[in-house]
Amino acid sequence: MEIINYPPRSQWAAVTARPHLDTLSLHHTVSEVLQEIRRRGDEALRYYTGKFDGVELDAVEVTAEEWDEAERSVPAELQSAIKQARDNIARFHASQAMSVTKIETSPGVVCWQKPVAIERVGLYIPGGTAPLFSTVLMLAVPARIAGCREIVMCTPCDRTTGKVHPAVLFAARAAGVSRVFRLGGIQAIGAMAYGTESVPKVYKIFGPGNQYVTAAKQIVSLHDVAIDMPAGPSEVAVIADASSNPAFVASDFLSQAEHGADSQSMLFTVDETIVEPVQREIERQLARLPRRELTEKSLSHSKIVVLRNRDELVEFTNEYAPEHLIIQSADYRELADRIVNAGSVFLGPYTPESAGDYASGTNHTLPTSGYARAYSGVNLDSFIRKITFQEISRQGLCRLGPVIETMAAHEHLDAHKNAVTLRLADENRE
Amino acid sequence: MEIINYPPRSQWAAVTARPHLDTLSLHHTVSEVLQEIRRRGDEALRYYTGKFDGVELDAVEVTAEEWDEAERSVPAELQSAIKQARDNIARFHASQAMSVTKIETSPGVVCWQKPVAIERVGLYIPGGTAPLFSTVLMLAVPARIAGCREIVMCTPCDRTTGKVHPAVLFAARAAGVSRVFRLGGIQAIGAMAYGTESVPKVYKIFGPGNQYVTAAKQIVSLHDVAIDMPAGPSEVAVIADASSNPAFVASDFLSQAEHGADSQSMLFTVDETIVEPVQREIERQLARLPRRELTEKSLSHSKIVVLRNRDELVEFTNEYAPEHLIIQSADYRELADRIVNAGSVFLGPYTPESAGDYASGTNHTLPTSGYARAYSGVNLDSFIRKITFQEISRQGLCRLGPVIETMAAHEHLDAHKNAVTLRLADENRE
Repeated sequence: MEIINYPPRSQWAAVTARPHLDTLSLHHTVSEVLQEIRRRGDEALRYYTGKFDGVELDAVEVTAEEWDEAERSVPAELQSAIKQARDNIARFHASQAMSVTKIETSPGVVCWQKPVAIERVGLYIPGGTAPLFSTVLMLAVPARIAGCREIVMCTPCDRTTGKVHPAVLFAARAAGVSRVFRLGGIQAIGAMAYGTESVPKVYKIFGPGNQYVTAAKQIVSLHDVAIDMPAGPSEVAVIADASSNPAFVASDFLSQAEHGADSQSMLFTVDETIVEPVQREIERQLARLPRRELTEKSLSHSKIVVLRNRDELVEFTNEYAPEHLIIQSADYRELADRIVNAGSVFLGPYTPESAGDYASGTNHTLPTSGYARAYSGVNLDSFIRKITFQEISRQGLCRLGPVIETMAAHEHLDAHKNAVTLRLADENRE
Repeated sequence: MEIINYPPRSQWAAVTARPHLDTLSLHHTVSEVLQEIRRRGDEALRYYTGKFDGVELDAVEVTAEEWDEAERSVPAELQSAIKQARDNIARFHASQAMSVTKIETSPGVVCWQKPVAIERVGLYIPGGTAPLFSTVLMLAVPARIAGCREIVMCTPCDRTTGKVHPAVLFAARAAGVSRVFRLGGIQAIGAMAYGTESVPKVYKIFGPGNQYVTAAKQIVSLHDVAIDMPAGPSEVAVIADASSNPAFVASDFLSQAEHGADSQSMLFTVDETIVEPVQREIERQLARLPRRELTEKSLSHSKIVVLRNRDELVEFTNEYAPEHLIIQSADYRELADRIVNAGSVFLGPYTPESAGDYASGTNHTLPTSGYARAYSGVNLDSFIRKITFQEISRQGLCRLGPVIETMAAHEHLDAHKNAVTLRLADENRE
């Protein structure tokens, strides 16, 4: 952990910089695999799943029996927790629905937006050591609320059993996923982007993944399908002051650090006196964590930054643009009002990041690496399009027509002008 | 113009396919230029503007005197038209603003979204034969309404005079653009993505352009900056029946065709009898158009498709997912209700596409090439992020805590669990 006291503004860019994730060097290899999937469909999926994952794919799609079996094998306590989390996520995302408002922009000219769900979406859930059922909820629940007709999910199966983790399947069913495929990595992204004999083509792909998944999403997004957002290592910034409980601060710091060796935890404060107590608490809690080694790696590029005053604190935080921002200082509400770059913000002493990771209702798929300057996290909007409509009356076009004709003429678009002129001429005739 | 009568479903994919815009082959060249701009800043901007545009760049930024001069040289009629269009665009986009609603997802757990403008945005306005002041309005007006702090615009200057077209500058001032730079093509995109001595770095880049601009936007969007949406040739689908005025239908068909040789105009109908009258009207109107040659090229890949019935008509239209959809049939309201894939929809006989291109209030920056299946057109949302906030009370965490602990434990994230456990332990102590 690096402690940076009162960095001058000239150093802010360097202090807030994230490691550059080089996926471009993978593009060539990943493109080749994607092209094979586009060309040869299921055959290529089987080939690469054998080659990359060491799994001989029998049925690509998870069967009805496996779904039922999964439901039986998930402990009741976890089933209940997943359902409670689902309900909170559903309530928050349902509240984001927009209503249709027709606006008369000038007399006889009526315009409106109609929200329409993306018909087919694809969710990617990574494999690895832990079953990421929480990510299933975060992607599938809003997709279902938006009204997506088909929600397809890909996730790698266990190497030895060939099965998808039962908690992942349970969450998928609880959230309303239509179909689940035993596919990981580039194969999953290619299958959903292009469609194969088994896997339907989707219009937008969501979900986290390793550098190969990220590269594959980047490539397919250039032409074939939309993606949720660019990916990078997860991160948190905690703002604390002398009123904060050092144990709470340390626990949030470590929550982020345990995500992966490339995660980044940051502490921003104007109060130098809290640095030592927080450091001590981090050491104390770290000693008891099973993922200690990985967490220590992550801490090695974590930073504690002491700023001169509250204005600097706010500006520095906005410059960093954290994925997660936890404000535990006494003035957390005032500070929150001044935050303009962040993914998700956690307010007060009793709002740990893990609440939002699982169950408060907000989404945990959030912009990392400073992307919060330009992107929102996944929300209901991510699953809909807002189609614009307009209807103009004869009288409306009579009034607005000359404006259109003048502008079209000056842009040298005569057919555009003509489309108005001949309608008005027709009007005059009647 | 190809006339396709009653295509079987097996042919729909081929009939609705768009030409594949190959920008990947440009990536290598474009990347090199972008890297030079990143490395050498203004010096590289000057070098490439000389090389590609044949312009010796003196001042990169448009000066206050040029702004004033522009205002004096734009005809009063056009000034008034631009202002009326701006006001309609402003009214419609202002109506899209969301309000903050706090939701208690479970007792003591409060979540909300706060809309915040992207602080710095960059607008690209192509050069070419016509001054695209309408695109200036479509991008800058919603940026201003969203509250973007800095709105930067790049547009190439005239080769001989070195000036930006006065109507473009007038629209920029009317819409609230902060600064305008005399830059086109790859240089413009690179300057806004990385920032140079003269041009500020922005967080999101908007606007149309040629294949080099498109490739540059694709490349910078992989790591450095967000972009509005993928680009492709413009297109319209017109739905008409025996009640439609063939002259109106033809005028909309031609409006689209005159955009460029690669534009696509489509007519979808269930009424074979209208094909001939519409064709005759197209011929008649085309004969009088100054851009006749270009328009004819575009018509060469336009299609008239006759479908079997209204269900097929709706499904076929949704499969095509047009950028612009004009419904001039008698049942236009019923059909409109069933449209799920389109950028912007124009309803009834007196709503030509040119109304939306200029002045109805809707945005004309729309998803082409079938991207309407996954993307919205530019709207107020394009310029904001929705940051999520959550605040949990002690009691709220007491109730929700066990759900979070159970889920974290099953995902093997002990520090996540611990962040709740120690807060609850502390609670119990007090």
